Amino acid sequence: MNKIKPFLHKGTRDFLPDEVAQRNYIFETIKTIFHRYGFVAIETPAIERLEILTGKYGEEGDQLLFKILNSGDYLQKVVWNTLKTEDENGETISYKKLTPKISEKGLRYDLTVPLARYVVMHQEELIFPFRRYHIGPVWRADRPGKGRFQEFYQCDADIIGTTSLLCELDLTQMILDVFKSLNMKVKIKLNHRKIIESIADNLGIKAQMNKVLIIIDKFDKIGMQGVRETLEKEAILSTAKLNKLMKVLSIKSLNELKKILGPDEIGKKGIEDLEFLMKNIPSDSIEFDITLARGLDYYTGCIFEVVSTDHPIGSILGGGRYHNLTEVFGGKDMSGVGISFGIERIFEIMSACNLFPTLNANHTKVLIINSDDKDFEKSLELLKELRQQGIPSEYYPTNAKLEKQMKYANAKKIAYVVFMSGENLGVNEIILKNMETGVQENINKSLLKEKIK
Amino acid sequence: MNKIKPFLHKGTRDFLPDEVAQRNYIFETIKTIFHRYGFVAIETPAIERLEILTGKYGEEGDQLLFKILNSGDYLQKVVWNTLKTEDENGETISYKKLTPKISEKGLRYDLTVPLARYVVMHQEELIFPFRRYHIGPVWRADRPGKGRFQEFYQCDADIIGTTSLLCELDLTQMILDVFKSLNMKVKIKLNHRKIIESIADNLGIKAQMNKVLIIIDKFDKIGMQGVRETLEKEAILSTAKLNKLMKVLSIKSLNELKKILGPDEIGKKGIEDLEFLMKNIPSDSIEFDITLARGLDYYTGCIFEVVSTDHPIGSILGGGRYHNLTEVFGGKDMSGVGISFGIERIFEIMSACNLFPTLNANHTKVLIINSDDKDFEKSLELLKELRQQGIPSEYYPTNAKLEKQMKYANAKKIAYVVFMSGENLGVNEIILKNMETGVQENINKSLLKEKIK
Repeated sequence: MNKIKPFLHKGTRDFLPDEVAQRNYIFETIKTIFHRYGFVAIETPAIERLEILTGKYGEEGDQLLFKILNSGDYLQKVVWNTLKTEDENGETISYKKLTPKISEKGLRYDLTVPLARYVVMHQEELIFPFRRYHIGPVWRADRPGKGRFQEFYQCDADIIGTTSLLCELDLTQMILDVFKSLNMKVKIKLNHRKIIESIADNLGIKAQMNKVLIIIDKFDKIGMQGVRETLEKEAILSTAKLNKLMKVLSIKSLNELKKILGPDEIGKKGIEDLEFLMKNIPSDSIEFDITLARGLDYYTGCIFEVVSTDHPIGSILGGGRYHNLTEVFGGKDMSGVGISFGIERIFEIMSACNLFPTLNANHTKVLIINSDDKDFEKSLELLKELRQQGIPSEYYPTNAKLEKQMKYANAKKIAYVVFMSGENLGVNEIILKNMETGVQENINKSLLKEKIK
Repeated sequence: MNKIKPFLHKGTRDFLPDEVAQRNYIFETIKTIFHRYGFVAIETPAIERLEILTGKYGEEGDQLLFKILNSGDYLQKVVWNTLKTEDENGETISYKKLTPKISEKGLRYDLTVPLARYVVMHQEELIFPFRRYHIGPVWRADRPGKGRFQEFYQCDADIIGTTSLLCELDLTQMILDVFKSLNMKVKIKLNHRKIIESIADNLGIKAQMNKVLIIIDKFDKIGMQGVRETLEKEAILSTAKLNKLMKVLSIKSLNELKKILGPDEIGKKGIEDLEFLMKNIPSDSIEFDITLARGLDYYTGCIFEVVSTDHPIGSILGGGRYHNLTEVFGGKDMSGVGISFGIERIFEIMSACNLFPTLNANHTKVLIINSDDKDFEKSLELLKELRQQGIPSEYYPTNAKLEKQMKYANAKKIAYVVFMSGENLGVNEIILKNMETGVQENINKSLLKEKIK
């Protein structure tokens, strides 16, 4: 047989039992809070049609979509003459022209665009305002790096079908509850797309704003000076406008901002929204951050991010209000607001800060030692009884050396070991060993359940 | 904006909240039993390298693998001259030759081959005998049909690292426990690859056996007569051998079989194994089935399938022992035995037979009616208290008509509705309406928790 070296595709991961237990701890904690806030779980497929996915994440996002080859003889209908392109090497086949001919589906890039498709397709079956959550993997053909994967989990909660600011408030409180449950200290950063719009208008830089936003969005990585230098280098703004912008970006409070923006209605609405939220949320957990921009261009209202204050490694949650997400799929009047937890970073912080409780991936509580054939039926009977009582139990599958069986029990952190045979054991007697204390005692089998409670 | 008609790729599905709740009910029931039997959860990525996946599922399986296009300019290194093939249309590019040049990864086809890779890669970190389970989606480019999907869930449990027959026994008992918990009536069908081998030897048809097995495997769909006709049509066996084979296939008991196979050591071992299992499992839940073949060629020992006796729609579980699964990845001495629950069919049967308990996808227990601004702070305060006490609650996000809010509560099957304002209400009084009984009463806010217990 030809041996194949087993390895993983870059940016994908296996999870060992202990890691699965830790990840499930995060998911279950989040789900408990989501349920408490009235959110329901939905699921969408990993595979989506490419026309659903493309054009939603910008040009860079389209490049990062994993595209799946059509099945069967996918070249059958390809007309090669139409796919040629001229470059420095002469005439070649253009991969950009070929792709749509040989691939019509891809892996989802996030859970938000599938949600928009889902809401439009199932609007008759859903209850609005629709509070849904979705936890699942997404895929991006990104360059893998520390904490960056090609296959990773997202965990989203959205409320769709109302413009009420109470939804932003609900989500903000839910964010704080989730991180409190996870024992993580965090701060919510808050801004508003209407404020950004008003600033752009005020400075007369509306046309350049999209490019400017992408640079401002890197503020937490490159700092104020970095933003300035990048803007200068890219020469998007005149020096006068750049100076004005930098001054605005140094604003720390809504009151300061009010003075600058003046009576502009759009900016006023943004400020009002943020004032409402900040009034109703404990002030030590939320702050206005004028440099928060959020890359995705579908946001239209409040935008938030969360950072860990103990172990700041960038944003661990992003979200905001979008008014038109379902429009592209024919949905109407579907304002929504949503948040997305950065599960991989949350995992990283909880590991680094030792925030996981003691978890045991192995549920087994009792191991029955396999000593010899004469105990076989008695052992199987006890095993069955224990399991019937809901006590996770195992019977070691071979008559291996005792040392090996005990090693197994230790490795799996099994709390109790039972010996069915031993000197002077009565008919219904067994030996029970507590693996933590090392104490070993002869007991009547009928007392076992009580002993190991 | 260009409107895009939202639709799903064929063979993939969205799940509505109620369906998610039902599927989770199946998964959670199975997990509870798995834990009771000492199995631990692992996870592997959806994306695997193609060299890991190909050649493991036969030629047909390789055709059904979803292959992912390489990222970036995937044509850059393609040498077109080497990819040409001659057919009736003249010289064309061969898709079979092109595929390995433009695709190096695919979606997993099952959870078994990834398990083999995982065990070899992580053998130093795992505890053997390794009892693992894995529940997750797999993908096959199969023609979609009733109950057949391109993206569907598998649910596997395997014990790896021992040849002990106690593992087969453990899995058989676990199968019965799972279906009992799901309230499904089933029968386990049992056969042994060594018995099949011995029969083939006995009839002198060893060389043709693989082809013959594929046809016998369709027994439950086409019946004895169908098997005979197919074998005749394909002319794999001489008439004399075919007659003998049909006689053997009509055998119903191990005792009958013994007489035919005689002293052959291989057949004897197979019969011994099955006798051991059947002796230790209630006889009404298990039966020997000589026509059970199992398509996959990696099985080497006991093989099982499960059928529903109430709603027989084919096999709802398959499994068996394999001695060499990890060998292709360089693993040694890794005999294992595993089972795979057919989640989609189990879901179909449970729906058809009404076996699901009453489930509510919506956890919300209390809806606070949004009546007007003066209640706003009081309502938010109560909402917070309820959630702090772990009671899933919502505050309707807009001051909509009462009828609309009540409709929302009914649709979400919310048990209680709270009105903060009303005539003659004292400071700490609220009105609580039980949505099931319709009873409405004025109570002190402090009694709310007790009332809705």
